[in-house]
Amino acid sequence: MKHLSILGSTGSIGKQTLDIVRAHPDDFTVEALSAGGNNLELLAQQIIEFKPAVVSVPTDKQAMELRQLLADRAKAPRCEILIGEEGACQAAALASADTVVSGVVGARGIKPTAAAAKAGKTIALANKETLVAAGCVIMPMVQANNAKIVPVDSEHSAIHQSLSGYTRKDIKRILLTGSGGPFRNRTKEEIESATIDDALKHPNWSMGQKITIDSATMMNKGLEIIEARWLFDVPVEKISVLIHPQSILHSAVEFVDGSVVGQLGVPDMHLPIHYALYYPERKVSTQVPLLDLIAAGTLTFQAPDFERFPCLRLATEVARRDDSAPAVLNAANEELVYAFLAGRVSFMDIPRYVEKILELHQSVAEPTLDDILEADKWARQKSHELLGAAVR
Amino acid sequence: MKHLSILGSTGSIGKQTLDIVRAHPDDFTVEALSAGGNNLELLAQQIIEFKPAVVSVPTDKQAMELRQLLADRAKAPRCEILIGEEGACQAAALASADTVVSGVVGARGIKPTAAAAKAGKTIALANKETLVAAGCVIMPMVQANNAKIVPVDSEHSAIHQSLSGYTRKDIKRILLTGSGGPFRNRTKEEIESATIDDALKHPNWSMGQKITIDSATMMNKGLEIIEARWLFDVPVEKISVLIHPQSILHSAVEFVDGSVVGQLGVPDMHLPIHYALYYPERKVSTQVPLLDLIAAGTLTFQAPDFERFPCLRLATEVARRDDSAPAVLNAANEELVYAFLAGRVSFMDIPRYVEKILELHQSVAEPTLDDILEADKWARQKSHELLGAAVR
Repeated sequence: MKHLSILGSTGSIGKQTLDIVRAHPDDFTVEALSAGGNNLELLAQQIIEFKPAVVSVPTDKQAMELRQLLADRAKAPRCEILIGEEGACQAAALASADTVVSGVVGARGIKPTAAAAKAGKTIALANKETLVAAGCVIMPMVQANNAKIVPVDSEHSAIHQSLSGYTRKDIKRILLTGSGGPFRNRTKEEIESATIDDALKHPNWSMGQKITIDSATMMNKGLEIIEARWLFDVPVEKISVLIHPQSILHSAVEFVDGSVVGQLGVPDMHLPIHYALYYPERKVSTQVPLLDLIAAGTLTFQAPDFERFPCLRLATEVARRDDSAPAVLNAANEELVYAFLAGRVSFMDIPRYVEKILELHQSVAEPTLDDILEADKWARQKSHELLGAAVR
Repeated sequence: MKHLSILGSTGSIGKQTLDIVRAHPDDFTVEALSAGGNNLELLAQQIIEFKPAVVSVPTDKQAMELRQLLADRAKAPRCEILIGEEGACQAAALASADTVVSGVVGARGIKPTAAAAKAGKTIALANKETLVAAGCVIMPMVQANNAKIVPVDSEHSAIHQSLSGYTRKDIKRILLTGSGGPFRNRTKEEIESATIDDALKHPNWSMGQKITIDSATMMNKGLEIIEARWLFDVPVEKISVLIHPQSILHSAVEFVDGSVVGQLGVPDMHLPIHYALYYPERKVSTQVPLLDLIAAGTLTFQAPDFERFPCLRLATEVARRDDSAPAVLNAANEELVYAFLAGRVSFMDIPRYVEKILELHQSVAEPTLDDILEADKWARQKSHELLGAAVR
């Protein structure tokens, strides 16, 4: 039986994690839930259903609202409500939890995930920002505290599964697949004039808005290169992006002997979550629809285009760096995506501003976690400054 | 360093094994070579190059010819020449060899492979007949003597690689891929009138003639179902054939959680041989061309057609049996393939006669190795009888 602390319980990953917990009540307990607070109604339902000992929300006001919501229900269980970043970190490090599902979206996930690493937890990691921005700090922390990371991203889960029984010395190349997003076949000009609705129409995956935009710019794939670099301890030169529109081969490892082992499946996040929750065991899933390769019929592959997708180029360049630049890339991108979703900048402004902010950044070598969070903050402020100044 | 005994050294698998040994002289010694005797000139060259302590050929006459060939060469090393089935078995069980490459084609490979199993060797198994005809006897022999089988067939190697770190209890289904052979898109009528040349034109693989015809009838895939059943200890119901014309996904395992892990590569037998020779290590290969999925572009999948390919239907039916029927299927097929190659029967006569011979066979339950070899002999005699009687 595994004892879970779920960070980001009302988000896409959190909800799917709880689907699996619901289907396998004998295999899991929920010790803690941490949520962003924008869906307290759902959080209250989750508390009633899964009875965590501890819950965390960002603000005092949300904590009060949550208490009220629970007070209104019959049979609401008692639970401790923690507040703020500190509260999320406490939930992540909770002594009674052995496995932390890090499903928070964005840089807000870094500190709680670091807390889980320091507490020696097994981390089912869906928050890619943790490694993108702070890989150089988090990975030594994981090792020093005997923590473990099992990736929940479908691509990194695929690589993790493909590496079963082998180590980094056996890797010739990681083949990181990506659908190419909704703009895979669009011209540069068409991408330039893309609307929010266009960008939110992902062909294969049902995900949160932030990640869906990152998929359209292909920043997502770039961030995954950085994540893969840290997770599997391989140089960026050994990570190749492969455009695969059907999202069925979730990624693969080319071994030194020329053999390629890859993981395939339907595009459904339940699969990598299920894998990470049960790792190193395999357990029958009732959530994961089976892959029917005959029905799928055709899998295609093509080279990535760094020109139409400048975010991919930017991220690949930054991926090689061990300083604070990846944190800036990530934070600037996050701010620009939200600005795009708010209708404040155009789609191609995302890479333009991110590149400009990277140029303005004075990078910090061998950064601490504080340096990284500082760089993150700087990049956000700089985004706001530039966006405020931008004539639109 | 591994010490090899190579059975079938002048055949397709044997030659490719020696390519790998030649490229990695520090990793292997060749202790024994066993050959069918139809290319003594090549065998003599192999002896001069690889200096085995022991060589085996089928007949006294071939032994004399080989001695003569070696006597004519300067610097020919001394080696002991063994004769007949007994000699091949001695070569397979040689004390100085730890790894036996079983690359003999056909039922002749069974006894020497059994000898290797009894001697507790690691067997790089390319001879599929060993498990097809005698799996029920060989697998207990392997276990009792702490022998190991690493499959060399590309499909079973792919399954073996995909299972790395997992066991049979984790398997939901084995996805056994096959190109569909040269007649994949032919109508029943076109297949009925296929010539020897048509059948020998395999789209992807360069293999021996026997296996190439088996690929055209799809008996090859049927025999592989039987082989997979024994190698991975799964019921036939859990083995699904998947037609994949590009031969790039070499096969895959669907785990109980719905995740599919598969092995991909160029269609080149050096890859599974290299894998088996180095297992459980991965070692850089200079023989194996790298897979370029972007150049490959498209992978397609379709369902197998049991009607146009009655050999596949027959083998799937027989695969469920634990008696002498698989040996009869295999032996009758082998005789019919040679009769087809000799121009004595038509292409579709192969399944017709095999089915007839299976019907005539009085099967032996819980057979011994002798029962199996007896059934094999019976099926060959019956083939000859029926073919002699056939009006053509």
